[in-house]
Amino acid sequence: MNRTIQRVILATVTLGVAGAAFAQVKPEDEIRYRQSVMNVIGRNFGGVLGAMAKGERPYDQATAVKAATLVDMLSGLPANSFGPGTEKGAPTKADPKIWKDQAKFKAAYDKMVAEVAKLPAAAKDPAALKAQVAETGKACKACHDDFRLKEFRS
Amino acid sequence: MNRTIQRVILATVTLGVAGAAFAQVKPEDEIRYRQSVMNVIGRNFGGVLGAMAKGERPYDQATAVKAATLVDMLSGLPANSFGPGTEKGAPTKADPKIWKDQAKFKAAYDKMVAEVAKLPAAAKDPAALKAQVAETGKACKACHDDFRLKEFRS
Repeated sequence: MNRTIQRVILATVTLGVAGAAFAQVKPEDEIRYRQSVMNVIGRNFGGVLGAMAKGERPYDQATAVKAATLVDMLSGLPANSFGPGTEKGAPTKADPKIWKDQAKFKAAYDKMVAEVAKLPAAAKDPAALKAQVAETGKACKACHDDFRLKEFRS
Repeated sequence: MNRTIQRVILATVTLGVAGAAFAQVKPEDEIRYRQSVMNVIGRNFGGVLGAMAKGERPYDQATAVKAATLVDMLSGLPANSFGPGTEKGAPTKADPKIWKDQAKFKAAYDKMVAEVAKLPAAAKDPAALKAQVAETGKACKACHDDFRLKEFRS
């Protein structure tokens, strides 16, 4: 084996190891991350946009657009934290069905992301916001009904 | 007392109660919220921008600007979750000093927010990003050194 081939093999192996290290997930970190993102989404969707839609909080365009934009930026982040190996490792409400029917989970998740993506534009108008909060809430609820347990499991 | 005055008093009292309900915080929710936001900031600042600055992850302008914008939107959110009554209620690493020297804490917190605010522009260029990640990291560390405990307390 000449040195050039040796070097190519070494580089390939090194890259492979680096790639594996990069992709390596600590289940407890992924569980904590998806819970954190969902918590921030919940506070800003429910506590800001939902409260405005219900008239519990006065509508304010700048606040609404900011919260909607934030929720939109967050919505897709935890999708990568429900991958293989993250089924357990810390207390979680994630239903094990997620890992048994990834296609169905992904469809429910993507529906939420798609509805959330309409929030920033809708947030510019109180009536449009109210309607889009309702549609988004349905998508959240559908995924929670199917894939979120009522209590934490270990 | 005429009915108009009665109505004004009733409206004032009702608004006052609604205002109080709005401002009411559950300490455990505020603790969880500030931890959630910090976790999402940590993943996107450290895991994306910090990793790019250190060369552990390839620089990609779109990814960098997106992560920087997200961190910028998040940075100020938990400031309101360190208010009176949130010193304890769930395991936390927040140093009780925060509630004894709010002015010093606020100054350290605001310094972090100010450095984070420079990240989205800096993220457009790898050298600028690296420099601003270093400055932001210093502000994070300074506040953590002074106001974050090493271990959780109850």
